[in-house]
Amino acid sequence: MRGLLVGRMQPVHEGHLEVIKRILDEVDELIIGIGSAQLSHTVKDPFTAGERVMMLTKALTENDIPASKYYIIPIQDVACNSIWVAHVKMLTPPFQHVYSGNFLVQQLFREGGFEVTVPPLYNRKTYSGTEVRKRMLNDEDWESLIPSSVKDVIYEIDGINRLKQLSRRELNEI
Amino acid sequence: MRGLLVGRMQPVHEGHLEVIKRILDEVDELIIGIGSAQLSHTVKDPFTAGERVMMLTKALTENDIPASKYYIIPIQDVACNSIWVAHVKMLTPPFQHVYSGNFLVQQLFREGGFEVTVPPLYNRKTYSGTEVRKRMLNDEDWESLIPSSVKDVIYEIDGINRLKQLSRRELNEI
Amino acid sequence: MRGLLVGRMQPVHEGHLEVIKRILDEVDELIIGIGSAQLSHTVKDPFTAGERVMMLTKALTENDIPASKYYIIPIQDVACNSIWVAHVKMLTPPFQHVYSGNFLVQQLFREGGFEVTVPPLYNRKTYSGTEVRKRMLNDEDWESLIPSSVKDVIYEIDGINRLKQLSRRELNEI
Amino acid sequence: MRGLLVGRMQPVHEGHLEVIKRILDEVDELIIGIGSAQLSHTVKDPFTAGERVMMLTKALTENDIPASKYYIIPIQDVACNSIWVAHVKMLTPPFQHVYSGNFLVQQLFREGGFEVTVPPLYNRKTYSGTEVRKRMLNDEDWESLIPSSVKDVIYEIDGINRLKQLSRRELNEI
Amino acid sequence: MRGLLVGRMQPVHEGHLEVIKRILDEVDELIIGIGSAQLSHTVKDPFTAGERVMMLTKALTENDIPASKYYIIPIQDVACNSIWVAHVKMLTPPFQHVYSGNFLVQQLFREGGFEVTVPPLYNRKTYSGTEVRKRMLNDEDWESLIPSSVKDVIYEIDGINRLKQLSRRELNEI
Amino acid sequence: MRGLLVGRMQPVHEGHLEVIKRILDEVDELIIGIGSAQLSHTVKDPFTAGERVMMLTKALTENDIPASKYYIIPIQDVACNSIWVAHVKMLTPPFQHVYSGNFLVQQLFREGGFEVTVPPLYNRKTYSGTEVRKRMLNDEDWESLIPSSVKDVIYEIDGINRLKQLSRRELNEI
Repeated sequence: MRGLLVGRMQPVHEGHLEVIKRILDEVDELIIGIGSAQLSHTVKDPFTAGERVMMLTKALTENDIPASKYYIIPIQDVACNSIWVAHVKMLTPPFQHVYSGNFLVQQLFREGGFEVTVPPLYNRKTYSGTEVRKRMLNDEDWESLIPSSVKDVIYEIDGINRLKQLSRRELNEI
Repeated sequence: MRGLLVGRMQPVHEGHLEVIKRILDEVDELIIGIGSAQLSHTVKDPFTAGERVMMLTKALTENDIPASKYYIIPIQDVACNSIWVAHVKMLTPPFQHVYSGNFLVQQLFREGGFEVTVPPLYNRKTYSGTEVRKRMLNDEDWESLIPSSVKDVIYEIDGINRLKQLSRRELNEI
Repeated sequence: MRGLLVGRMQPVHEGHLEVIKRILDEVDELIIGIGSAQLSHTVKDPFTAGERVMMLTKALTENDIPASKYYIIPIQDVACNSIWVAHVKMLTPPFQHVYSGNFLVQQLFREGGFEVTVPPLYNRKTYSGTEVRKRMLNDEDWESLIPSSVKDVIYEIDGINRLKQLSRRELNEI
Repeated sequence: MRGLLVGRMQPVHEGHLEVIKRILDEVDELIIGIGSAQLSHTVKDPFTAGERVMMLTKALTENDIPASKYYIIPIQDVACNSIWVAHVKMLTPPFQHVYSGNFLVQQLFREGGFEVTVPPLYNRKTYSGTEVRKRMLNDEDWESLIPSSVKDVIYEIDGINRLKQLSRRELNEI
Repeated sequence: MRGLLVGRMQPVHEGHLEVIKRILDEVDELIIGIGSAQLSHTVKDPFTAGERVMMLTKALTENDIPASKYYIIPIQDVACNSIWVAHVKMLTPPFQHVYSGNFLVQQLFREGGFEVTVPPLYNRKTYSGTEVRKRMLNDEDWESLIPSSVKDVIYEIDGINRLKQLSRRELNEI
Repeated sequence: MRGLLVGRMQPVHEGHLEVIKRILDEVDELIIGIGSAQLSHTVKDPFTAGERVMMLTKALTENDIPASKYYIIPIQDVACNSIWVAHVKMLTPPFQHVYSGNFLVQQLFREGGFEVTVPPLYNRKTYSGTEVRKRMLNDEDWESLIPSSVKDVIYEIDGINRLKQLSRRELNEI
């Protein structure tokens, strides 16, 4: 059985790894969609799709997860909710089961005839993209929340400076 | 003379029917545009364009309005306000008069050389999509606000459960 | 049971009416999609979606087909074949059966889990949009191929002159 | 050396002229991008791209700035921040230096390998589009904030009435 | 009176200049649209919109045409013919008269209520973009067909090598 | 050093594998873009992006290429050639070297400041997507041209029947 999990992964953190590992106990292959792939360079979505693909690939390798078990696919948003499931299906291998805690995603896939379950639990309060980005902005410890290889990617792309620059408030429009 | 009326119709309710009937006293044929046709599966816009076309078609038949008097056309939003009038004209038979209470719509059609008037009055506070959706979410009486045939459509598509699912607040991003 | 039939209808002709009438013997309601709705003002696609909606509405009324039996919906093309079925579903009431002689359309709907059959036969050589447009350009008898009410629409929009103007070959680019 | 300056110019005001004049002391040619070119007919973005091109062209002529020194180019927004620099480069002559006070724009162009500096100072509090539009809505003195030729354009297009109509609050959705 | 002229200008040549000069005898101001602005890097459309803006600006300056007489505006194609006129109007100052030898453009603007005339005559066989590009590819004399300042732009952007590279036929798909 | 290779892979065949293996001798990591990702269900592009991702992932695993060496990324076409490089960069990890035999791709990346080389040679006449699809349609031996795991994918998705259905010529438009 193939499963699907979609997340924005801004950035990839240990919570993602924990969820992915647990789902891999239940499925033969897991498709991991990188959501809102078109977004980057904002405080909420600082990293490009390509940067997030690189983070996730390296983190899965670091965790010794064999490449035959997963697919990593960037997925751009579409304007029409009712087309989103078809859009995901176009970009991915055939799958039967969807893991999502998002109520809209659950509804759309259920209307499309898919089985949907909530992903396994983990510590969502600490391990969240929001928390990681907050710590990055405040020079607090963000490195302990993410895999070591993801940290390397963030340094390679000078990600902390990018995020800080994007968070500055503009004085006024010209 | 052909007239144009545009509404999101999320969902079709008795207020729409009342306005349409009164306008039909003034025009030979009425084009009824279903606005924001690309939207669905949100709390504010739960129903697809196709579902809204079905609601309106059945409601007009229920009210014995002859098919030779109206056209029902889904109209998607466009990114540029100044192109919207041309977009509507592409999708509709030629028309001369526009009915709208929306100030942007009024301005755009007036700049495009159309006559624009505010639609006839009715009880807008009770008969509004916002009120109907609020009652649906709160298990209050929504059925008395909409035509009987529209109610049947909402049950056919399991619309109340969809709306309630969409209104749940997500705990956290993954 | 609801059925779906999609055609470009450039313009609506007697062949369309014949097919629609026969399908209406088999289904409770028929959704008639006006395909390539975004196209107009070319020799192959001279009429806008709105003009084609008007032609078809008037032709169905002229043929005494009750409005409770059909839905007319303009459907724009999409760039991705594998999203087209979802796009059609967004714009239409729920349907179960598809009528199409186009092999791509057949394949896409079959992969989407729909029953597909070829529309009933009629004289396709004479009653085709290609033939009608050819006769319009050559001042031959096109009026006998289309319903009388469609002819009126074509005159209202000065359609013959438009088609002839569009068929002129440009001398050279500026 | 060619420079680039981008602004929404809703509308063109004396602050723009002051900045442009000072930059022209530093560069051989200046490309002036009219940003968010697709927007119009809202309270924040009332004027079309074409109207803003006309305002700026006339204001530069009024200020005796020779046409050989500048290019005026409407630039639409794109959905992906990380593509925006390439989008601007497609629409403009080759340039080497970017002037911007916007932190996102600065970041995007720096990542694209451009030199970026903050535009020269001027009185941003008084000379801002926000202030001009506020005065237009409140019948206060807006004319002293903008070049005389821009004032003429606003009267030609009946801009004050458009802005006031757009600022009215809708009673309710139909 | 303001006029509109649209051309792809791949590249700007002496024929364009001749037409523009003659139209400027008839109108107060001329809007010059650079058509198919999104295209570049093909054999038929080798130059970007920005490069063409630069060519035309320099050519008009070289010919001593005052900047107060014209506007240069890149215009991208749109998918729907029936929206194109609104798209052009959004991007340009208000205009009353259209100059075009293209029958589709003529038809669209006439249906939009504009006066349309064929541009003044010149030697279209020699002075055409097709001819200039052919000579560029064959190392024949192309420089005599275009203004001297346009030639400089083509050398600045290494345009001849780009065109030759684009004209090579691929051996096979990988 | 990271390299980039882009191909449509309709379907993945032994030629792709041979090229990828040779490039992997030269680079640390290889980004493999699946081009024209939006296309599917045509005779020239029968397979979806997701199906091609699955083919390539399985073929690389079958060939014992470690997952830490490559990234597989679907890349949709864009309307503007001059934006394509930025589009690719958005979707991929940072790269320095491009492998392409396509002259347009070479030109675009060279103008973007990249090193570009032609991919290593292999037997392009036999190992090409065109040849594989031709053999599929004619019931000739296509299986020997592609990796065994790709053959399994094609059977899982019933790919031969899809291709044959898509190749049938329509009788006539309705």
